[in-house]
Amino acid sequence: MDLQMDGAALEAFMATHFPQVSDDFRVRSVSSGGLVLEMRVRDAHLRPGGTVSGPAMFALADVAVYLAILAQIGPVALAVTTNCGIDFLRRPPAGQGLRAEARILKLGRVLAVGDVLIFSQGLEAPVARASLTYSIPPGARRGPGMG
Amino acid sequence: MDLQMDGAALEAFMATHFPQVSDDFRVRSVSSGGLVLEMRVRDAHLRPGGTVSGPAMFALADVAVYLAILAQIGPVALAVTTNCGIDFLRRPPAGQGLRAEARILKLGRVLAVGDVLIFSQGLEAPVARASLTYSIPPGARRGPGMG
Amino acid sequence: MDLQMDGAALEAFMATHFPQVSDDFRVRSVSSGGLVLEMRVRDAHLRPGGTVSGPAMFALADVAVYLAILAQIGPVALAVTTNCGIDFLRRPPAGQGLRAEARILKLGRVLAVGDVLIFSQGLEAPVARASLTYSIPPGARRGPGMG
Amino acid sequence: MDLQMDGAALEAFMATHFPQVSDDFRVRSVSSGGLVLEMRVRDAHLRPGGTVSGPAMFALADVAVYLAILAQIGPVALAVTTNCGIDFLRRPPAGQGLRAEARILKLGRVLAVGDVLIFSQGLEAPVARASLTYSIPPGARRGPGMG
Repeated sequence: MDLQMDGAALEAFMATHFPQVSDDFRVRSVSSGGLVLEMRVRDAHLRPGGTVSGPAMFALADVAVYLAILAQIGPVALAVTTNCGIDFLRRPPAGQGLRAEARILKLGRVLAVGDVLIFSQGLEAPVARASLTYSIPPGARRGPGMG
Repeated sequence: MDLQMDGAALEAFMATHFPQVSDDFRVRSVSSGGLVLEMRVRDAHLRPGGTVSGPAMFALADVAVYLAILAQIGPVALAVTTNCGIDFLRRPPAGQGLRAEARILKLGRVLAVGDVLIFSQGLEAPVARASLTYSIPPGARRGPGMG
Repeated sequence: MDLQMDGAALEAFMATHFPQVSDDFRVRSVSSGGLVLEMRVRDAHLRPGGTVSGPAMFALADVAVYLAILAQIGPVALAVTTNCGIDFLRRPPAGQGLRAEARILKLGRVLAVGDVLIFSQGLEAPVARASLTYSIPPGARRGPGMG
Repeated sequence: MDLQMDGAALEAFMATHFPQVSDDFRVRSVSSGGLVLEMRVRDAHLRPGGTVSGPAMFALADVAVYLAILAQIGPVALAVTTNCGIDFLRRPPAGQGLRAEARILKLGRVLAVGDVLIFSQGLEAPVARASLTYSIPPGARRGPGMG
């Protein structure tokens, strides 16, 4: 399936629709199978001891899979997260940026599903895993679907 | 089971250990079965259109169940969220505060599990549902467990 | 919202569409808010030690929420489970039947969400908790939705 | 990390501890990173139309990750599933066997976490995705942990 948006287009989309958080994220790569997104960790993301908070990791997972889907279907601002399951595996080391590696598992007519591993700089094993489902508004899909 | 902490003690614990977010939350009631927590919605919690963001609802769910557990076992700053499953059910109306109603389902030697419904002011049906698991550090429990 | 099916209609629906498992289940009560379903535990459901297997509890949770939804929207055999999150809280005592208490949290145009607590006879605390999402085929809904 | 059990040892463990289901499963490969497990689909696993039931796919996911963990830590019959999140992505074609590809994400002192993709013969895209958490009884772990 052809990509509808590249990294620059995804970042421009974020800056327009999610200006409050778009500065935190950088799209490192995007392909038909998935997307790599980096998060700059700011003070507001931290918990005592310098570890990244759960909500900040949730936000990273959500944005990564969301952008991976948009890369496939084009700029659909109205796609809505309906479900997230997240496992926190290890405490991220203090002061390190995070990297999310997302992949799409289903891109259907009404639902899209993806999952993501989150890594911390300097740690080989993932610090979190998440899977997310999005509801796609009617008429948003273009081209043939996967499933 | 006797409560180890009341609402005032829980809010004082939050102010000490989570100063970045404690101003957002107010404990409305706490009992052996559960806890009601309100979140003041700030601009940083909002998405375009004024709706509350997913990460903000995740944070509310996490804090509500965490405090419900602390009320039972006492001030254990090291209890760690290991898993969260969250369903986003309806878009919260713009500009309304949120209320979380949490209950504890298991309070074991190493794991505690609770779930929570999130409501928006002026809407009878819940806007989100979440269940969370926490790992309890060795030696933290006091008194006999439930499960 | 008026009920579209009562307990007898739900059991008849199961016997027609799921004859392999319908003998295991009995609808104890059904209302606009939820449904109570009992499962007769058979040898095929057991693990060594006599405890009920995870897949058997998953099946009970899935059937309970599915029937609670059908009670509201009528006999829609094509509604499909898209997501389930389940927490196993305590080992069910050997040789005891199980009871599921399901409630509906969202009954939308394309998605329905419910959750359920599973209890074992002779144990006050729940043995499992689950939440499930169903995709509802176009045209299946009748009457006004909840959300 | 060295493997504690190979495919033959894992199948022998299943035959001893889970005789009711062990005939359904074959370990195709096992490595330090994961495990591939095949499930023979029997009539009891089917729903009308010939598709594999949700509980049967749940069982496959559970057994695959469980065996992947045992391969690492040795024969610990008491490891208990505490949480499962599963997404059903596509309806498996009728009459086809299933294959689970499991990987371990965390192997800690008290918790182990893995995830799994389930594939149907003759279909490239996965039919389901699941993540599972297991509680490991005290004293069961051997050797240094990953996390």
